[in-house]
Amino acid sequence: MDLAIVLDSNTNQSLQQQLYEELRRAILSGRLPQGQRIPSSRSMAKSLGISRTTVTQSYEQLLSEGYLQTVVGSGTFVCTHLPDDLLHSTPVESAQSIPRLPIKLSKYAEALAKTNVITTEPHVPISFRYGRPAFDQFPIKLWRKLLSRHCRTNPTWLDYASDLLGYKPLREAIARYLTRFRAVQCEPDQILITNGTQQSLYLMMRLLIDPGDAIALENPGYLSARRIFLTQGAKLLPVAVDESGLVVKELANYSTELIKLVYVTPSHQFPTGATLSLPRRLELLTWAQQTGTLIVEDDYDSEYRYGDRPIPALQGLDRTHSVCYLGTFSKVLFPSLRIGYLVLPSNLVSLFAHAKWLSDRQLPLLEQQVLTDFIEEGHLERHIRQMRSHYDYCRQVLVQALNFHFGDQVTILGEKAGIHLMVRLHTNLSDEEIIHRAAQASVGMISAQPCYLKAHHPGEFIFGYSELNEQQLQEGIRRLAQVLLE
Amino acid sequence: MDLAIVLDSNTNQSLQQQLYEELRRAILSGRLPQGQRIPSSRSMAKSLGISRTTVTQSYEQLLSEGYLQTVVGSGTFVCTHLPDDLLHSTPVESAQSIPRLPIKLSKYAEALAKTNVITTEPHVPISFRYGRPAFDQFPIKLWRKLLSRHCRTNPTWLDYASDLLGYKPLREAIARYLTRFRAVQCEPDQILITNGTQQSLYLMMRLLIDPGDAIALENPGYLSARRIFLTQGAKLLPVAVDESGLVVKELANYSTELIKLVYVTPSHQFPTGATLSLPRRLELLTWAQQTGTLIVEDDYDSEYRYGDRPIPALQGLDRTHSVCYLGTFSKVLFPSLRIGYLVLPSNLVSLFAHAKWLSDRQLPLLEQQVLTDFIEEGHLERHIRQMRSHYDYCRQVLVQALNFHFGDQVTILGEKAGIHLMVRLHTNLSDEEIIHRAAQASVGMISAQPCYLKAHHPGEFIFGYSELNEQQLQEGIRRLAQVLLE
Repeated sequence: MDLAIVLDSNTNQSLQQQLYEELRRAILSGRLPQGQRIPSSRSMAKSLGISRTTVTQSYEQLLSEGYLQTVVGSGTFVCTHLPDDLLHSTPVESAQSIPRLPIKLSKYAEALAKTNVITTEPHVPISFRYGRPAFDQFPIKLWRKLLSRHCRTNPTWLDYASDLLGYKPLREAIARYLTRFRAVQCEPDQILITNGTQQSLYLMMRLLIDPGDAIALENPGYLSARRIFLTQGAKLLPVAVDESGLVVKELANYSTELIKLVYVTPSHQFPTGATLSLPRRLELLTWAQQTGTLIVEDDYDSEYRYGDRPIPALQGLDRTHSVCYLGTFSKVLFPSLRIGYLVLPSNLVSLFAHAKWLSDRQLPLLEQQVLTDFIEEGHLERHIRQMRSHYDYCRQVLVQALNFHFGDQVTILGEKAGIHLMVRLHTNLSDEEIIHRAAQASVGMISAQPCYLKAHHPGEFIFGYSELNEQQLQEGIRRLAQVLLE
Repeated sequence: MDLAIVLDSNTNQSLQQQLYEELRRAILSGRLPQGQRIPSSRSMAKSLGISRTTVTQSYEQLLSEGYLQTVVGSGTFVCTHLPDDLLHSTPVESAQSIPRLPIKLSKYAEALAKTNVITTEPHVPISFRYGRPAFDQFPIKLWRKLLSRHCRTNPTWLDYASDLLGYKPLREAIARYLTRFRAVQCEPDQILITNGTQQSLYLMMRLLIDPGDAIALENPGYLSARRIFLTQGAKLLPVAVDESGLVVKELANYSTELIKLVYVTPSHQFPTGATLSLPRRLELLTWAQQTGTLIVEDDYDSEYRYGDRPIPALQGLDRTHSVCYLGTFSKVLFPSLRIGYLVLPSNLVSLFAHAKWLSDRQLPLLEQQVLTDFIEEGHLERHIRQMRSHYDYCRQVLVQALNFHFGDQVTILGEKAGIHLMVRLHTNLSDEEIIHRAAQASVGMISAQPCYLKAHHPGEFIFGYSELNEQQLQEGIRRLAQVLLE
């Protein structure tokens, strides 16, 4: 029997391993057929010029894995129990050859396949994209110091979490923060740490919405939320937004619907930038109470309000446990931190905690511990204060540039808040033409159109100003004026 | 009008803020009724003995939030647009008073509420719990050095991920690792980074299983997986396990069922410790190909095999894209790292990536970058080698202690692999009595009973040996013998 086994003494792989691989390949490819007697270890060693121990070890490995079998008194044979049809090819080499039967996906997967899940942003020198903080303002050194301190002193961060709701000192710190700055009424045990608003909304949909259930939402509104609602099979009921936020009385248009929940962004309505006024807040709470509807309050951008004090959260005005409150550190600190939170009515806490555990167990503990220190040692408040003044200035620069270059051909919408603003351009150009001309001038513009579920207003654009410096903001608007105005 | 407003100059709260709060509370409680004229800023300042600017600022805040309104020429009034029924109570104080309408949960939530999602473990001095690595053996200093280096040199870790599949260099490192050590056939673009096996399985269920779909699984088997299957509404088909792993021919018992997928733990069957033999692997692949069934290969503990070389992964033997391969760093490094991976047939990659993004966007980037360095610089291989020798020794100590103290009253099951083993105690004591007596001796024992879907064998226990040192292992078994044997 000539197996033409090639062993190479110049590789890292041991001779024993090489022999094992060669024999295995020979068996799987059929070069060594089932039931074939293989040479004794002595003669194999002699023919290959290697030690008998090496051969014995290779054989034993193949025996233990079921490629070979021994028959007492007769010798060693290729196993006869290997299924025929898998033998006469070399699996490793021909891996791509056999097409797979089509897999039947779940209904959820079918809905997902029909939904555009992500938005791609233009890659241009000056992009007015939104939703990211000013990375160059983040106190990296301080963060690194806290990380390093924790790695040294606190080895508890290696283990599984002992707490389904998330790291308890972090929940306590968040509860104090929310009570103080957002007038949210909460105990630490009402808080579930999630890895961001995306997961908070996803869990909420999973636990509260069955296909066909109705959700009322702002129109225009936050696209990522809408995508989660849609893939869960929810029926979407758009409600208009004006300069005081959600037009609550429009909810009455849907009086024949059983609305399961209403999703709102009261601090800085996305994308219009309106702040839900106090009368509207009270009106919405009354409506929710009367209809038994849950309010999902996504309080993003609540940290950034320039001028007035922020209006207290809906959750804090609520007396009937009708509000689920969502927050995140993605925009205040950095998105890749992946820490957000849900403040839940107490009767929902355990359910949400178990759903989170079942879906991905927990967040890394190290980041939760470092964030706790960051809050408790006062760094968060200081950082927010600094960023508030930074973004306020960026906003003023942008507004001045828009007014200077566009004059009465632009309307700036929304309150002095957040890290983006929405504008209405008074022009006869189509949105596509505007974006195209901007791109020609190396400026990225983002249309508000996809945020509309119905009745889109042409000429509306979202301008993020958190990632650009003064010079970029001014230059960006100057270029836009050059290519968009007559 | 006497408002009995009390301002305290000894608190941290500014006078302006205190006045704002007091007035707001008075309005919401009805002490200041709708339409009530409030004192001019001048007279209010005088009556409170504070500066007029302070009063003006408080008023402006209340005006901007809609609590007050000005009537030109007449003065400032409590707003008349506040809904009546919310006014005559103080929301903040009476928050718990009104019971909430019951919320109708989703079908998923109902299934979840019926399932026991977590297992609590005994808190005793010597616990034979399983599933955690030896934390004191983890190279914390090295990890900290890598973390610190990344924080300094690589600020990309702050931003959103640019890659839906996870950090690309990490996927490349994992692909090389799996190809080399597990004979997995994969390109980096077939790998989706998840935050652990829990999420990998959850995504798989969400995308492939509708309520009522059938899943074949090992009996006994991994409880956490079963819980995910159950809450998704899957029909579970138990398949027996013997000393060669899953008894593949038993799948034929379910020939009238349309089996959507089969879930296996081939390297170190959980909890029996059997390794799926090569003939069985080939048989399973043939069956999967013939029936068009997907195999979910959870290759946990594949790193720890003492003696023989590990048998190549099912995924690497497959020619028909029938295998989804799952791995995690929770047991090789540490659980709170929250990094695992799925190796997917290429036609499923995009769908899974979008489902992951929709459910929680991404993992923290920093940990992914640090892990990449850990692998690429050879630390992972070195760590696994060291731990393999460490756990091998722990296993030997445990086996010797069991044999010494229990003699022929114990059968040790499974291969020399993994970080736990299963034993069968030959005793007339019930499992409950055994656990109770062990607890009396301050030893934590874990029954294999919950791992069985049907036909439980009494006297089977799982012994984790990764968290205990030599002395604890010996002492634990000595105590057990003392309380369990006559």
